[in-house]
Amino acid sequence: MTLAVGEAQSLAAAALASSNTRADIAASVAEALVAAEIDGQGGHGLARVPSYAAQARSGKVDGHAEPVFEQAAPAVIRVDAAHGFAYPAFDRLVADLPVLARTTGIAIATVFRSHHFGQAGRHAERLAEQGFAGFAFTNSPGAIAPWGGQRGLFGTNPIAFAAPRRNAPPLVIDLALSIGARGKIMAAQRTGEAIPEGWALDAEGNPTTDPFAALPGTMLPIGGAKGAALA
Amino acid sequence: MTLAVGEAQSLAAAALASSNTRADIAASVAEALVAAEIDGQGGHGLARVPSYAAQARSGKVDGHAEPVFEQAAPAVIRVDAAHGFAYPAFDRLVADLPVLARTTGIAIATVFRSHHFGQAGRHAERLAEQGFAGFAFTNSPGAIAPWGGQRGLFGTNPIAFAAPRRNAPPLVIDLALSIGARGKIMAAQRTGEAIPEGWALDAEGNPTTDPFAALPGTMLPIGGAKGAALA
Repeated sequence: MTLAVGEAQSLAAAALASSNTRADIAASVAEALVAAEIDGQGGHGLARVPSYAAQARSGKVDGHAEPVFEQAAPAVIRVDAAHGFAYPAFDRLVADLPVLARTTGIAIATVFRSHHFGQAGRHAERLAEQGFAGFAFTNSPGAIAPWGGQRGLFGTNPIAFAAPRRNAPPLVIDLALSIGARGKIMAAQRTGEAIPEGWALDAEGNPTTDPFAALPGTMLPIGGAKGAALA
Repeated sequence: MTLAVGEAQSLAAAALASSNTRADIAASVAEALVAAEIDGQGGHGLARVPSYAAQARSGKVDGHAEPVFEQAAPAVIRVDAAHGFAYPAFDRLVADLPVLARTTGIAIATVFRSHHFGQAGRHAERLAEQGFAGFAFTNSPGAIAPWGGQRGLFGTNPIAFAAPRRNAPPLVIDLALSIGARGKIMAAQRTGEAIPEGWALDAEGNPTTDPFAALPGTMLPIGGAKGAALA
């Protein structure tokens, strides 16, 4: 099935809007999910619509939340997402951060009490499209043990950055610090396939290729102790 | 042989001062090298004194250079190290950056035309000792090929950061993005030992454990393509 970008956005927005989410917020979320899909990051794309919608219906995410922006310092914006979706906050930040940075030279924003961060590289890319070096980081659920440990304590915390280029789209780097993506382990559970060696330890700290044993265990970071230190 | 910290600093400073380096600059450099030695980072420690001194004598580094500090924006300091040692610039930046950051919320400094960056974690740590989250990055000689390539193009570019802790010294993370340290390959050349598998490719792109073949080749990054992307 082929969908035009606008159609895909409309469908996703309609699904959210009918799930207790305000229309403009649904449109912002839909745009972000379709952008991820276009970038080939399906795990942050349209596959999220059902879970986002269910969470809005159940009230786990507040589909009507109004993010509160505070100018915490001349170069710092602090955003309380008020348990709502994160994307409306990002939409405003990619407009407001460049205004600050043009004055102060560097600027930072923190977003808290928000829902899913989405595709980290896209946030950085939107800053780079305006001529800035952009960085984006988030915390994420515990999945990687401290080096030598057995319990996932650190997230697969993504590192994303983007830099403008002359006569070309921005260079965008976006990676998780685990060797394998958590989403791929979940996919392997569905297909019943084994995961590659070296990706994960089970709950007892033994190497495993069984996706069902891997998920309650811990994921291995890139670069051994170095990756665990970065996470 | 055991040296008191002050003795080690005095010896290193004297060696530099007798090698065409101004006394206060020599003292700053000596303090940084001894701090690295204390931290167990011998590669950035006293072993550097002979090469630093030789470079000051030959004029490769200007032992009398006066760094020029420019307030490029309210949160940005730009330092022209004027081909001198980098440490005097850092000494002033770890004092000046917190002053800016207290006002603007975040601040950054760039240093250019400088000599060796030294121990990256120490620069970040000195900011954390004042209650700030500190980051330190530098470029470094080409050593890591873009993923799939054979020619070292990226540096082993260190990533260092430090965070204050309550009732404890700062947490400091400082790592290079190569699996093995370049200094260890140089050490293996001196001892004639093989280097571990997986550290490096030779100039033809083949895996090698021969330190003499590795150095003109390329070093392998942590996390494969991910580490190369970070470098």
